[in-house]
Amino acid sequence: MSSGIVHDVVVNPNIIEMEYAVRGAIPQRAAELKKEGRKIIFCNIGNPQALGQRPISYYRQILSLIEDPGLISRERQLRKAIASSVRDASLMMKDDVLDKAEFILQKMESGMGAYTESRGPAFIREAIAHFIDTRDEVTSEEGVYANPDHIFLTNGASDAVKSVLEMLIAGPNDGIMIPIPQYPLYSATIKKYGGVQVNYYPDEDSGWSLERRALDESIQAARQQGVNVKAIVVINPGNPTGAIIDERSQREVISFAHENNLAIIADEVYQENVYDGRFVSFAKMLGRAPVPLFSLHSVSKGFYGECGHRGGYLEVRNAPNIKGTSANFIDILVKQASVSLCSNTVGQVLTYLMVTPPAPGSVSAASFAREKQQILDDLYHKAETIKEAFTRMEGIHCFGRIGALYLFPRMDRLPANTTDFDYCMQLLDTTGLCTVNGLGFGQKPGTHHLRIAFLPPAEMLQEVLPQWIEFHNRYVNS
Amino acid sequence: MSSGIVHDVVVNPNIIEMEYAVRGAIPQRAAELKKEGRKIIFCNIGNPQALGQRPISYYRQILSLIEDPGLISRERQLRKAIASSVRDASLMMKDDVLDKAEFILQKMESGMGAYTESRGPAFIREAIAHFIDTRDEVTSEEGVYANPDHIFLTNGASDAVKSVLEMLIAGPNDGIMIPIPQYPLYSATIKKYGGVQVNYYPDEDSGWSLERRALDESIQAARQQGVNVKAIVVINPGNPTGAIIDERSQREVISFAHENNLAIIADEVYQENVYDGRFVSFAKMLGRAPVPLFSLHSVSKGFYGECGHRGGYLEVRNAPNIKGTSANFIDILVKQASVSLCSNTVGQVLTYLMVTPPAPGSVSAASFAREKQQILDDLYHKAETIKEAFTRMEGIHCFGRIGALYLFPRMDRLPANTTDFDYCMQLLDTTGLCTVNGLGFGQKPGTHHLRIAFLPPAEMLQEVLPQWIEFHNRYVNS
Repeated sequence: MSSGIVHDVVVNPNIIEMEYAVRGAIPQRAAELKKEGRKIIFCNIGNPQALGQRPISYYRQILSLIEDPGLISRERQLRKAIASSVRDASLMMKDDVLDKAEFILQKMESGMGAYTESRGPAFIREAIAHFIDTRDEVTSEEGVYANPDHIFLTNGASDAVKSVLEMLIAGPNDGIMIPIPQYPLYSATIKKYGGVQVNYYPDEDSGWSLERRALDESIQAARQQGVNVKAIVVINPGNPTGAIIDERSQREVISFAHENNLAIIADEVYQENVYDGRFVSFAKMLGRAPVPLFSLHSVSKGFYGECGHRGGYLEVRNAPNIKGTSANFIDILVKQASVSLCSNTVGQVLTYLMVTPPAPGSVSAASFAREKQQILDDLYHKAETIKEAFTRMEGIHCFGRIGALYLFPRMDRLPANTTDFDYCMQLLDTTGLCTVNGLGFGQKPGTHHLRIAFLPPAEMLQEVLPQWIEFHNRYVNS
Repeated sequence: MSSGIVHDVVVNPNIIEMEYAVRGAIPQRAAELKKEGRKIIFCNIGNPQALGQRPISYYRQILSLIEDPGLISRERQLRKAIASSVRDASLMMKDDVLDKAEFILQKMESGMGAYTESRGPAFIREAIAHFIDTRDEVTSEEGVYANPDHIFLTNGASDAVKSVLEMLIAGPNDGIMIPIPQYPLYSATIKKYGGVQVNYYPDEDSGWSLERRALDESIQAARQQGVNVKAIVVINPGNPTGAIIDERSQREVISFAHENNLAIIADEVYQENVYDGRFVSFAKMLGRAPVPLFSLHSVSKGFYGECGHRGGYLEVRNAPNIKGTSANFIDILVKQASVSLCSNTVGQVLTYLMVTPPAPGSVSAASFAREKQQILDDLYHKAETIKEAFTRMEGIHCFGRIGALYLFPRMDRLPANTTDFDYCMQLLDTTGLCTVNGLGFGQKPGTHHLRIAFLPPAEMLQEVLPQWIEFHNRYVNS
């Protein structure tokens, strides 16, 4: 038995072919350089706390209290015990923090260590529905209320995307429309489940707006090749573009989906990252139109940036019935979720906290608002600083309003026979700045881009931006 | 736009057909009864904390501290501040708890809120490798050391099973051997990825031992139908049987896999739930045999029972190369993991705590050991109590040593034209006891079983077991 070799194995070809640039060749090179002792600034991924963003205290104190069931009463006992001897009340947790933790533990019934209902605890799904209705200013005459039973808590938004695409892709001719550029979770997942990626092209020069003609061209080309298009993905605010889709474009997508019998998958994980305007959800724009809608949200982005906790939700509207069965899409999503038992409870609670901020006037409201505003202001300021640096780089253009956590500039003057991949590799080697080249997200043939997450601390940007400008102007003239 | 209907949609047929009994019809009925105000004892699932098992304090205090980065230093400040005024030192966290939390936060670098490496942080994978080597008493002459780079942290074991099966099932003729009865995660996942479920039958009457002949018959029958068998799943200790596989059976599986060029998927999530013997891992038994081995472990079971936190790991040995490429299985697993970015950080840290218990003689060692032993003793005692009740039920036989969290008795005297499904539904309606019938796990045709998780508090068992005995003896004689 100790002799012999391990035989080669045939593996699912879709997984072999799948690509995922955000953690691809450039970040891998960056990790190697870091091991060699180089200082690397990881702007390849929207991972705010890895670049020093501090978690929101209110969230974390509550998570802390619910993990250790004895801590809440201990905190109250301690407070009495030290009232006379300790002046510094800031050492103690605030009353509303203790109350909220206690409330959550009571609602979770079995605490953080038990499997929950597969969809997630009912009280959290109800809070999410209320959050959506409030955000979208739903009134009974006009709008449609969110249904807690059509909400699923997930391990981040990635899980939700996978569940939906895995169901919609029923055969090798089933196609999913995705914007180009796109977040490679979509291309990877479509590939993985053996579907067809159907590209459509937002108009870069007009701030990545969506024209009906571009959508029609895309679906017609796909149909000519025998592709059965099932859904259209929209990412708003955009990833990698950072662009915010205007309401006219949203209406175009909805009427297009309606006429062509498509579901809409609305990736809205950056809905809090709208710095100089307001976010309008696809659910709100949809109103009573009979179009299936799958909306995603997550605790990873926004001002919370709690990527590591893997929390998020999927909300479904107009869930279709399943052809040839008596089942509805929701039933099958529930069954699918049940095989993984449930999403992680801490991510669930963070999602609950995300949708139930401290009430105005409550003890924690002011400090919460201050921390939140500081983070959002910082992000916007950093984005503007980088955008300003672009004006000093030859042939760089960056379109659209600032949204999400990314800038996606176009580079019009790369030397002949070089690609944005070469550029980003050289940029990494020269300055330590790790970005992802445009091809990793898809782009119009003949164009070159890169995506940078605007997350590094201001001091770091002050240091690296002049180096980038110098590198760039040398590179494009070489 | 407000007119029209939502069209039916065609959905991946594999997901439609997939079944998952553990959260199937009987538990759904139980949930309804509970809503109506009935008292239900949920023994359909291994969810210890839902039935009152308390979390290990050491684990939870550390989780509590790492969620709120300010708490460690605050705890130290408070201790000084109150030293003179508070006598009750038990209010404060122990030194080694504070130190360990501090160590973890320092190792996590960006805290709990950042995405980690896709496989999980290196320090945790190293600790897991060390845990495996210690558990398996590896010496350099004989054994093979675990490789931290071949370990993947996952959201519970379910995720790991899915990743591996999704890769191994490369086409509709690819088959996976699973024991009957089995944990339905396996049948569901094989179905989902469009592979063929190939049953093999451990011998119930000899305590679920594995005979080479049963394995040979299974693979030959599959091959005659054109099935290309890729791997064999073993669950040890067993789920649903609770049986512990003896070393002779382990050797049979390994030589069978070797000769037939199969990978072994060893589900070892119940490795701490061996109450009157010791656990021997497949990695240890494998030694230097060139058989690909995928071993799973999880924080959900054992004495920890931290189901809700969704932590676990996959360890790979003898990872095969991928036919037709220059890639190894590990490379593709890394890519696959990267699309989900990473598993949840709290589950990662709990996995770390699971593999690094307090050192003997440390401040927390005694209380940790006491809590652990109490839980394991309770579980064993409850299993014996239920087993004893079986002796008073006509025609019930329960084979094998007690392991895992389950008993899987055979019911030889069900009335003609009734099934174990009918029995379990009636049992639920009559006593409030929610179990899962044998068919949900698969069983030899003509036999009837049920699975019960031996988790309810002793008082609850005292109350319900006499009712069950009465119900049973009436049922089989009806």
